Amino acid sequence: MSSQIDFSSWTCPLPLRDYPNIVLGHGGGGKLSAELVENLFLPAFRNPAIESLGDSAVLRVPPGRLAFSTDSYVVRPLFFPGGSIGDLAINGTVNDIAMSGAQPLYLSVAFIIEEGLPMATLGQIVDRMRIAANSAGVQIVTGDTKVVERGHCDGCFINTAGFGIIPEGREVGPALAKPGDAVIVSGTVGDHGMAVMSVREGLEFETIIQSDSAALNSLVEAIFTASNDIHVLRDPTRGGLASSLNEIAAQSKVGIALIEDQIPVKPDVQSACELLGMDPIYVANEGKLVAIVSHSSADSVLATMRRHPLGIDAAIIGTVISERPGLLSAKTKIGGTHVIPMQIGEQLPRIC
Amino acid sequence: MSSQIDFSSWTCPLPLRDYPNIVLGHGGGGKLSAELVENLFLPAFRNPAIESLGDSAVLRVPPGRLAFSTDSYVVRPLFFPGGSIGDLAINGTVNDIAMSGAQPLYLSVAFIIEEGLPMATLGQIVDRMRIAANSAGVQIVTGDTKVVERGHCDGCFINTAGFGIIPEGREVGPALAKPGDAVIVSGTVGDHGMAVMSVREGLEFETIIQSDSAALNSLVEAIFTASNDIHVLRDPTRGGLASSLNEIAAQSKVGIALIEDQIPVKPDVQSACELLGMDPIYVANEGKLVAIVSHSSADSVLATMRRHPLGIDAAIIGTVISERPGLLSAKTKIGGTHVIPMQIGEQLPRIC
Repeated sequence: MSSQIDFSSWTCPLPLRDYPNIVLGHGGGGKLSAELVENLFLPAFRNPAIESLGDSAVLRVPPGRLAFSTDSYVVRPLFFPGGSIGDLAINGTVNDIAMSGAQPLYLSVAFIIEEGLPMATLGQIVDRMRIAANSAGVQIVTGDTKVVERGHCDGCFINTAGFGIIPEGREVGPALAKPGDAVIVSGTVGDHGMAVMSVREGLEFETIIQSDSAALNSLVEAIFTASNDIHVLRDPTRGGLASSLNEIAAQSKVGIALIEDQIPVKPDVQSACELLGMDPIYVANEGKLVAIVSHSSADSVLATMRRHPLGIDAAIIGTVISERPGLLSAKTKIGGTHVIPMQIGEQLPRIC
Repeated sequence: MSSQIDFSSWTCPLPLRDYPNIVLGHGGGGKLSAELVENLFLPAFRNPAIESLGDSAVLRVPPGRLAFSTDSYVVRPLFFPGGSIGDLAINGTVNDIAMSGAQPLYLSVAFIIEEGLPMATLGQIVDRMRIAANSAGVQIVTGDTKVVERGHCDGCFINTAGFGIIPEGREVGPALAKPGDAVIVSGTVGDHGMAVMSVREGLEFETIIQSDSAALNSLVEAIFTASNDIHVLRDPTRGGLASSLNEIAAQSKVGIALIEDQIPVKPDVQSACELLGMDPIYVANEGKLVAIVSHSSADSVLATMRRHPLGIDAAIIGTVISERPGLLSAKTKIGGTHVIPMQIGEQLPRIC
């Protein structure tokens, strides 16, 4: 993903040029709504299911267990280094589906737009969604657009929902971690949250911190070629690594013991966190996963991750234990143990 | 649906009482988010899939074609005579799925909430969703909550997505209307839009105009027991009957000729429309459907509709013709014909 946002790459289709900004009628279900669908959404997302323009998309789905997920995206600003609300909206829901061991297939996209949003901004967001969906290998098959009056929204909110099929034999879930399992993270933590915060707070470092926004479904497929003893997969988004591992410890009724200095953190992210008084393990990621796997398959899963472009910084960061069920803990450098609690509220509002 | 909103029927669960209003942390993915899920959403929507609390719901789905749909709801005010944003969010997506001939099964629910929304208001919305989902026979299996700062949203926006299975042998779609087909509407038009507008504009009539918000899946099932020659089903929401029929005429490349005085309209809705300078055929419905069926099955479909509680006012309102393809027209009382165009923009903002 490039750090430069190429605002010139999108040009407004002819029939939309009479409206340089979104007006209430674009969400009214009449002619303006139809023009938006026909000239913006259809060309970007083109596939047979979306083109039927029915009240719902009709899809033939292979038999099996289906993983179904949804998320809304309210990130501020809409574009940030390494990504945009459009990338997040695709990758975030693709990742939630993939974390059930499923192969994501189809997404819905629903926009809530503030009256006055430049048409070009919406066009750039849609273009990012197109690229992200192509890259993840999923199809956008149905959607909705609502427009609310100026001051009653914040530029643009996006919801995506979607589903995929779980191949036979895969059994992953947050309650399946077992004592002895290894805890592996696929790369550096805190990148996304600090990329957004650096822009919002005007922080400057030697390099620009980039969001890690990425679709993790190909990494999940790679992991399953290495082992079928994958017990838990989770993408540590809001609340970061610490919150995800706390939830897994609680649901699996096990303890999780981290080796804190094994957790990969980029130096700039570390500096940004120190400046803002934050701990990177509580900061949101958008292109990382945690895999909890049997002890015997840990090395082969780790090696497989490291060969994948999204897993080159993967590391084993801890162990599942039977002691202290429900608690996440870490060994300190001088040999003591401290508990890492779930965060109470919101450290970084509007991060995704 | 009762016209009185029983605000006393919902009491805040104990652990949520420390927060009489929604704070940013309720959308932060930490402890407050978890409390909201555990004490509000889970008790309301309880089912095995949602209780696993994974990143996605894992579901066993019967084989067949799947209908997948999404809508966001931004209606203002949140509660109105005959319904609420909660009812709309369930019934609207159930209806979109049912209009493909599918039997709706599972929904996702995603909230975008403005900081400061009273917890009791959210509780009442969730309670309405619970009742509507039970009544429609669908399960809410996955969800998401985001909170945005005061002034950056408008109380509460809701997105639902969902899917159902289309039984073998049903072939309905907006491009399948054929010359000779009958156009049937399941009841009075314009009720929902005028119920909301009457509250917003402070209009008073002899009775309070009630929204028709309802789940239409049981009516669809009834129709298919009467005939399999159902070509098009559509719920005329935003843009009303006129916009839906215009879209069908365009997609099916046929003309549609209405007999205007056959279209059922409640007297109060007619009065409200006249007062506001609107035509009820452009006003949103949330519990009505249009069925376009073969000429030979029109009478049995009509009779079946009229025996169903949601179809007692059903009427045959027109015919599909080969002339004037793409156009919706109506016979005037003095025997002339006029074209009913698609509306351009937004007649009634924030109606759903």
